[in-house]
Amino acid sequence: MMPEKTYTKKGMLIVLSGPSGTGKDTILKKIVSKDQALNLSVSATTRHPREGETNGKDYHFMDEKTFLNMAKDGNFLEYVKYCGNYYGTPLSAIDGLLDKEEDVILEIEIDGGCQVKKRCPESVSIFVVPPSIDVLKQRILNRGISNVNNMEDRLKTAEKELKFAHKYDYIVVNDDLEKCVSNILSIINSERMKSSRVKCITNEVF
Amino acid sequence: MMPEKTYTKKGMLIVLSGPSGTGKDTILKKIVSKDQALNLSVSATTRHPREGETNGKDYHFMDEKTFLNMAKDGNFLEYVKYCGNYYGTPLSAIDGLLDKEEDVILEIEIDGGCQVKKRCPESVSIFVVPPSIDVLKQRILNRGISNVNNMEDRLKTAEKELKFAHKYDYIVVNDDLEKCVSNILSIINSERMKSSRVKCITNEVF
Repeated sequence: MMPEKTYTKKGMLIVLSGPSGTGKDTILKKIVSKDQALNLSVSATTRHPREGETNGKDYHFMDEKTFLNMAKDGNFLEYVKYCGNYYGTPLSAIDGLLDKEEDVILEIEIDGGCQVKKRCPESVSIFVVPPSIDVLKQRILNRGISNVNNMEDRLKTAEKELKFAHKYDYIVVNDDLEKCVSNILSIINSERMKSSRVKCITNEVF
Repeated sequence: MMPEKTYTKKGMLIVLSGPSGTGKDTILKKIVSKDQALNLSVSATTRHPREGETNGKDYHFMDEKTFLNMAKDGNFLEYVKYCGNYYGTPLSAIDGLLDKEEDVILEIEIDGGCQVKKRCPESVSIFVVPPSIDVLKQRILNRGISNVNNMEDRLKTAEKELKFAHKYDYIVVNDDLEKCVSNILSIINSERMKSSRVKCITNEVF
């Protein structure tokens, strides 16, 4: 059973999602390098490591039995099955940081993003979209997918996923990478000034 | 009677308030000069024009009878009596702009700010605070108020007003003017990316 934990008055939980081909990975790396106060949460997965991936840095790699046991014990904030593999956010990876009032950013699939919003309404969710279908097509082609069926599948999936954009708090267009990164940093900066997050100003300031 | 007008799906209404001595006037001028998409709403008042003030630019100056008739006819978004004079936001000054999906910024007293939030929950309210009591004292002194009682009155008022900070959406500290202005611009920029304000992305983008 999922524990009924909430994150009131602690660090800020930021969720970044978007259809594949929108450049989320690159965006995330830039954001974390520019905002030193942000902690990147490392997901757990049952998929095999790709070349160059490091356990504990890119993902916590684990077998299905371990993953499902953790899920049964309520040790994930969210988890989803995607293309035959499980992906999840271990509570242990974020709980300690949020308790210490540190901010944490997660890049997760849209299903997982919607789960997080339900469990933590105070989380800040950001949906990245491509500027147009043509740009998305080009980005998918640049990744080496030339097969027409595969392309059509990817585009259909993207179209379905875009329908979830309005379930997120913010929608950011990735037209120009630097502008997109600066817009997301601006959202995070503003959210830190939300009065619900600023401690009792009358006692602190005066 | 106040008309039950709401501002859904139109331009964004931004409200700026804070105790006197926090530098709101200077901040507002800088914001409007840096964000060309922002329209400054001109308030109506029954107080006499000060030297250098222009009717229609600094305020719409009017007599009490005219003001109270407008109020009776529901022609103000909000109005308050402050130090013996009336101040209000004429609906005519903002309605046309919001209808055209243009953003409008108002600098108003805290009472008025709370009225606007009630009538337009979608408005974005920003409360500016001084970094400390010492800085506030110094700013009031710089304005030429050397009388001790007057200073004490001003500080007591400021203390009362600060208790309303948490009724606003955002709290911004005016420690460094440029930083404060950039933080407010960042809030306005982020609010424009709120998914509730971004039009149906699936139809527009794809």
